[in-house]
Amino acid sequence: MAKEKIVLAYSGGLDTSIIIAWLKENYDCEVIAVCCDTGQKEDFDAIEKKAYATGADKAYILNIQEEFITDFVYPTLKADAIYENDYLLGTSMARPLQAKKIVEIAEQEGAFIIAHGCTGKGNDQVRFESTIHALNPAIKIIAPWRIWDLKSREECIDYAKAHNIPIAQTVEKIYSRDENIWHISHEGGNLENPWNEHKPDIHVLSKTPEDAPDEPTYVEISFEQGVPVAINDEEMGPVELLIALNKLGSENGIGTIDIIENRLVGMKSRGVYETPGGTILFAAHKDLEKLILDRDTLQYRNIVSQKFAQLVYDGLWFTPLREAISAFVDETQKQVTGKVKMKLYKGTAWPVASQSPYSLYNEEFATFSEDEVYDQSDAEGFINLFSLPLKIRAIQKQNLEGIPEAQKALPKKVFKGGEFVE
Amino acid sequence: MAKEKIVLAYSGGLDTSIIIAWLKENYDCEVIAVCCDTGQKEDFDAIEKKAYATGADKAYILNIQEEFITDFVYPTLKADAIYENDYLLGTSMARPLQAKKIVEIAEQEGAFIIAHGCTGKGNDQVRFESTIHALNPAIKIIAPWRIWDLKSREECIDYAKAHNIPIAQTVEKIYSRDENIWHISHEGGNLENPWNEHKPDIHVLSKTPEDAPDEPTYVEISFEQGVPVAINDEEMGPVELLIALNKLGSENGIGTIDIIENRLVGMKSRGVYETPGGTILFAAHKDLEKLILDRDTLQYRNIVSQKFAQLVYDGLWFTPLREAISAFVDETQKQVTGKVKMKLYKGTAWPVASQSPYSLYNEEFATFSEDEVYDQSDAEGFINLFSLPLKIRAIQKQNLEGIPEAQKALPKKVFKGGEFVE
Amino acid sequence: MAKEKIVLAYSGGLDTSIIIAWLKENYDCEVIAVCCDTGQKEDFDAIEKKAYATGADKAYILNIQEEFITDFVYPTLKADAIYENDYLLGTSMARPLQAKKIVEIAEQEGAFIIAHGCTGKGNDQVRFESTIHALNPAIKIIAPWRIWDLKSREECIDYAKAHNIPIAQTVEKIYSRDENIWHISHEGGNLENPWNEHKPDIHVLSKTPEDAPDEPTYVEISFEQGVPVAINDEEMGPVELLIALNKLGSENGIGTIDIIENRLVGMKSRGVYETPGGTILFAAHKDLEKLILDRDTLQYRNIVSQKFAQLVYDGLWFTPLREAISAFVDETQKQVTGKVKMKLYKGTAWPVASQSPYSLYNEEFATFSEDEVYDQSDAEGFINLFSLPLKIRAIQKQNLEGIPEAQKALPKKVFKGGEFVE
Amino acid sequence: MAKEKIVLAYSGGLDTSIIIAWLKENYDCEVIAVCCDTGQKEDFDAIEKKAYATGADKAYILNIQEEFITDFVYPTLKADAIYENDYLLGTSMARPLQAKKIVEIAEQEGAFIIAHGCTGKGNDQVRFESTIHALNPAIKIIAPWRIWDLKSREECIDYAKAHNIPIAQTVEKIYSRDENIWHISHEGGNLENPWNEHKPDIHVLSKTPEDAPDEPTYVEISFEQGVPVAINDEEMGPVELLIALNKLGSENGIGTIDIIENRLVGMKSRGVYETPGGTILFAAHKDLEKLILDRDTLQYRNIVSQKFAQLVYDGLWFTPLREAISAFVDETQKQVTGKVKMKLYKGTAWPVASQSPYSLYNEEFATFSEDEVYDQSDAEGFINLFSLPLKIRAIQKQNLEGIPEAQKALPKKVFKGGEFVE
Repeated sequence: MAKEKIVLAYSGGLDTSIIIAWLKENYDCEVIAVCCDTGQKEDFDAIEKKAYATGADKAYILNIQEEFITDFVYPTLKADAIYENDYLLGTSMARPLQAKKIVEIAEQEGAFIIAHGCTGKGNDQVRFESTIHALNPAIKIIAPWRIWDLKSREECIDYAKAHNIPIAQTVEKIYSRDENIWHISHEGGNLENPWNEHKPDIHVLSKTPEDAPDEPTYVEISFEQGVPVAINDEEMGPVELLIALNKLGSENGIGTIDIIENRLVGMKSRGVYETPGGTILFAAHKDLEKLILDRDTLQYRNIVSQKFAQLVYDGLWFTPLREAISAFVDETQKQVTGKVKMKLYKGTAWPVASQSPYSLYNEEFATFSEDEVYDQSDAEGFINLFSLPLKIRAIQKQNLEGIPEAQKALPKKVFKGGEFVE
Repeated sequence: MAKEKIVLAYSGGLDTSIIIAWLKENYDCEVIAVCCDTGQKEDFDAIEKKAYATGADKAYILNIQEEFITDFVYPTLKADAIYENDYLLGTSMARPLQAKKIVEIAEQEGAFIIAHGCTGKGNDQVRFESTIHALNPAIKIIAPWRIWDLKSREECIDYAKAHNIPIAQTVEKIYSRDENIWHISHEGGNLENPWNEHKPDIHVLSKTPEDAPDEPTYVEISFEQGVPVAINDEEMGPVELLIALNKLGSENGIGTIDIIENRLVGMKSRGVYETPGGTILFAAHKDLEKLILDRDTLQYRNIVSQKFAQLVYDGLWFTPLREAISAFVDETQKQVTGKVKMKLYKGTAWPVASQSPYSLYNEEFATFSEDEVYDQSDAEGFINLFSLPLKIRAIQKQNLEGIPEAQKALPKKVFKGGEFVE
Repeated sequence: MAKEKIVLAYSGGLDTSIIIAWLKENYDCEVIAVCCDTGQKEDFDAIEKKAYATGADKAYILNIQEEFITDFVYPTLKADAIYENDYLLGTSMARPLQAKKIVEIAEQEGAFIIAHGCTGKGNDQVRFESTIHALNPAIKIIAPWRIWDLKSREECIDYAKAHNIPIAQTVEKIYSRDENIWHISHEGGNLENPWNEHKPDIHVLSKTPEDAPDEPTYVEISFEQGVPVAINDEEMGPVELLIALNKLGSENGIGTIDIIENRLVGMKSRGVYETPGGTILFAAHKDLEKLILDRDTLQYRNIVSQKFAQLVYDGLWFTPLREAISAFVDETQKQVTGKVKMKLYKGTAWPVASQSPYSLYNEEFATFSEDEVYDQSDAEGFINLFSLPLKIRAIQKQNLEGIPEAQKALPKKVFKGGEFVE
Repeated sequence: MAKEKIVLAYSGGLDTSIIIAWLKENYDCEVIAVCCDTGQKEDFDAIEKKAYATGADKAYILNIQEEFITDFVYPTLKADAIYENDYLLGTSMARPLQAKKIVEIAEQEGAFIIAHGCTGKGNDQVRFESTIHALNPAIKIIAPWRIWDLKSREECIDYAKAHNIPIAQTVEKIYSRDENIWHISHEGGNLENPWNEHKPDIHVLSKTPEDAPDEPTYVEISFEQGVPVAINDEEMGPVELLIALNKLGSENGIGTIDIIENRLVGMKSRGVYETPGGTILFAAHKDLEKLILDRDTLQYRNIVSQKFAQLVYDGLWFTPLREAISAFVDETQKQVTGKVKMKLYKGTAWPVASQSPYSLYNEEFATFSEDEVYDQSDAEGFINLFSLPLKIRAIQKQNLEGIPEAQKALPKKVFKGGEFVE
């Protein structure tokens, strides 16, 4: 009888390497290692070889960078979705796509078990497993970190040595990291005390603001329907464009945040995130929208953005609500076409100018001179009705409480049409 | 018979100076000029003298700086209310207090008419008049800019000359400005084309980021119940504290934004705002809250913040809804006590560390090691129920559409309790 | 030179009849009367004749019933949009369509002025004029009620007599009414005192609950993607279906509400609305959704519903925000297909049973017996993480305040895995 | 050494009776049975005796009816919080109070374990345990239904017989029920198929609408600051008042709903709820608010209500967010004082009239005649600015797309001030 097949979300790192061995030791199974190239800086050929060397029966390397950007990053960018006002959702957006790819491999391979290396205290286990349940409810999940006895990095290294698993890293690993083309995250180390400032050497992608050039860099980003399409008027594909912005952002020390966040699983954690190009994109996109979206739409969208961010953070990408909100967002983006000039300087991306054929800003209306559209005499009527509920409330209050002394002192004459009438 | 009394919101500038003359010319009235010292950098003795010189029958100078901070700025800070994600509401918060003070003078003087110098295209007319209607519905309002024939600065200067009104300014005024202890705003000039980057010489309060020191400045800000009380552990009153932070912020080029905003009266406008100290305070306050507020409270408060900002922007301070939201906010701030370390550098205020006796962050829980409170095995149950709606939906979909081919290929065995069962 | 053309929103009633005469008297113009048949019970041939008899140069009668239902009522029904929890928006939904039709006639006729008979205190003037501004910003508007000297019904009658305008009604008109195929509204008369119960004779469309049959009537309504398509399994077009439900609702005294509402123009008013068929439809639709929509989607949709209702009430149909929300709603309705059994009895429509191929209700999961999908042991983990923020907060509080006496009395042993451990 | 003490949430029913025996069988413990009298119709003396007879070492009967109403029902009523638009939260409001009382007993007794009889598929386990974790994080919880092997009512009866536990009920129990002074819920039986109409014999508290009197009953309810204080002008305490309204409601068949709801633990369930008096109270309270709350406050409160309902449903009563929302709500209720006349008839409670000293409704303003406060000519200015964003958008669209043919046909003359100008 054929062995069971287990599809493993494989990164090539220590944890998922020993999971291969652990799975084969504990189950009568074949292990199919799937490694998604989401843009992390790795040698994927080496990873593939390592998978086989570590005991995998089959290994897949999937380049999903473009799909990641177009199907996950762009919908999130269009929604201006930022978790708790700071976090640009780099890991959160990647997990559902990685899980989807792994489900596809599982179905293709006729496997009905997926294993992953997420710990039992983080968000990623939820994002992975929610996606799997939503896409294929028949698939079972093995999460070794919630099952096995290994409790620390040291124990994992011992296990690896005992099982002849090649482990490259010998230097001490200080931070727990997750990287893709959008960002890199850092947790652990001295970050665990929130009164510690993070050290400059935590930076992997970006310069610190202090190390950035003393002269600002300018860049123009063009959007069509909410999606970036060109840099300095040069059209680019999604991967190329993000790489170019990452370079500019990194050089100028842009996009590093250091935050306490509320995990989905009930506790707070601290993380440092570097998102150089993404930070520029979000700032540019928001600036362009201010030129184009009307007040009601902008303000309601800002509320919807928060829900979108929460859904993405919580791993609820493949849900009816996320899809319905995306339909809302797409409708708002139909005219978000135009160009934004960004100034990059010492850690911050400042939008300094914008233009759009769909701009609702009109110099003629906004200035204090006369124009044909805005009649200043309309303002009086507007204010009178706008504040009418307040006035009625104040009158009813006076009727109830009696006219105050100060009020009684007021003359009984009425001022109407610029004149005083008895 | 006694003349009518008109109370004028007086600034000492060109517009309100000629309004004094215009009122006396057009109505049989006494003019009582009221100038509020909200922290703008003016010579208030000179303003008082000028009021009389220009024809005022009486003049009041009211220092309302502290009341402005404690009763308007702090409730807004506690609410983290930022209009359209950028504007720190400097002018919006000041108008209702200024209007309130003027209503009080009117009642005290037995006047029932208030005049102001707001134009017919801006937000301030709405903020002034809504407040007046809410506080004393019997008071009538004269808004000369919506009535008279003067259409430009040049015509105003001509009118002043013709009426012997002393006008100090001879140089060309480029920008329309509003200043108080919290901020200064700039409109007009070359800002009116959104594709123009604003020029460095627009800065009044702050250095540009480029001109700021090459070394970061650190400052620690202490809060009690959401309100700042000390800088670098030195306790200060509200005015002193804000002046100190303004100095630090200005030196480091912090708090200048350049935005397109949606005015209440239906059109977009562009403005540059300098809010050096306020920008530091908002960043510090938000950072501290992340340490203290639980996820549900933080996320719901973030939605409520937007409504609060809209109410303040729209001049609806003295309304039941604003008061109810403040009650909500105050409840959330009861434990927002602690200290934040800020790094000020080249235009940006970065929170780098925080501490609080009410911190919900707990190093022990958040790290991936074992602890007594968080049992990793709980995660499986959590995920299963958290994603149950998705799973049920997926199952019902399969029931409806038939099992897909890929699914049929999956073995019928069940994986339960770590084992495969037929 | 040709006379100006004015297109008049014409109802055939007293007000718009004298407006024809008044326009011709005051402007050198042709009047084109446009009457929309939105389902109000009128003799439209007679209205057309009357228009000419009253002086109109041209008259249009437009049957827009089906467009009203499919393009305005159904999107609102799908959104479950109810203004202030009670009002089913009968008049609000009709106004933008009527205005759109009149703009189309104006463009076709080369007219650039539209006149309407809405009063200056109501919502309808806003709904009409906002729509006109959104659809053709070049068109000017004449609102006679805000201009002329006629202040009462009596003065209008006098004016009509003086101008030989045929007026049918001689009996006293008690209530101000607006009718279409969806509803009829009543205002004025003794309703103006909110302590008066409305009199039974106010009813135009429906029986009172007391006059309804003593036996309940059952009806089954089928929906496809949120839209009703059949009654008792008989497929019907939108007009036919609504007429059939109106009949059932009216017979059973269903759908009459009596409310105080907040008008857009700043004051409260009281109205009685009869919406017999619509009330059944909303109740059935909401019931079906409960079977189909997941918790997150249903609860967020319920918030969005309120915004949708406000936009419709405020005359903001043709706006980007309304369109974006409709995109959200349409996405949520893709599976709202199924059947609801309604019991109609003495004024109330009770949903009593429902079914759908997309039902997420599953008897097996919900009951307390065992099933394969829901493992009761998952609940413990779920609860532990769900309530973890509360627990952490409680622990931090104890750490801060010291363990309370009661707590100290608790044994130090730990209960773990069903046993007490030291 | 002393035995462990386990405090049991005891109802006197079959489940919690066998839990006493099961606890003593499986743990070396004393069992302290705590039964809360929340208004369910039971013989509490008999329950106390039964507890001892079944093996309890100690038994408490706590009358918490008044505390339940004033501290849980009234805050929820003031918030108009209704779960998923239908469910009046009868069970949800009771659980946190019951849990709080049991925690108090545990602390008083020096016990650190609480056991309850909630099943593993319902909401109540979450509500109980979340409350316990929030109030005393040191307390451990035993939930026998998630642990033991008993899977059905039959197995429980067998267990009871085998352990000599007196069980009164011999008749078949069809529905699972929960009762308190506010409501009774019914689940199970033939309700489990959503296409079954519930049978009339399910009613425990109330008549069916069909059995209710043929004549309506009128009742006047007075509120002070959002809380009911009198019926027909007779002041009553909370318990007395609710009993009186329950009687009126029950007689008139009011307050029975039959719904599919989304449980917190991820699945849908169906329930029938009878809430006779509560349904009248909610309808009256909402009606009174319409007279008193301004539009902004009412509409925002309606959104907040939904969050409040969700928190209560989810067992999150003792949380910072619920407390902050209550602070908001209390502020809105300061003027919700007045009287509502309700008509009770055949299953429905109709508000027919209302009055309040704080009413914002003003007959003079709302009618179409002239008054001093509302100047109809203000409407034009209001509409022009209110719809200005739409107009600007339409103009920009025309500028972009070119003027449409129809538009070009419009005369170039301008209509201004009632005249046509070239």
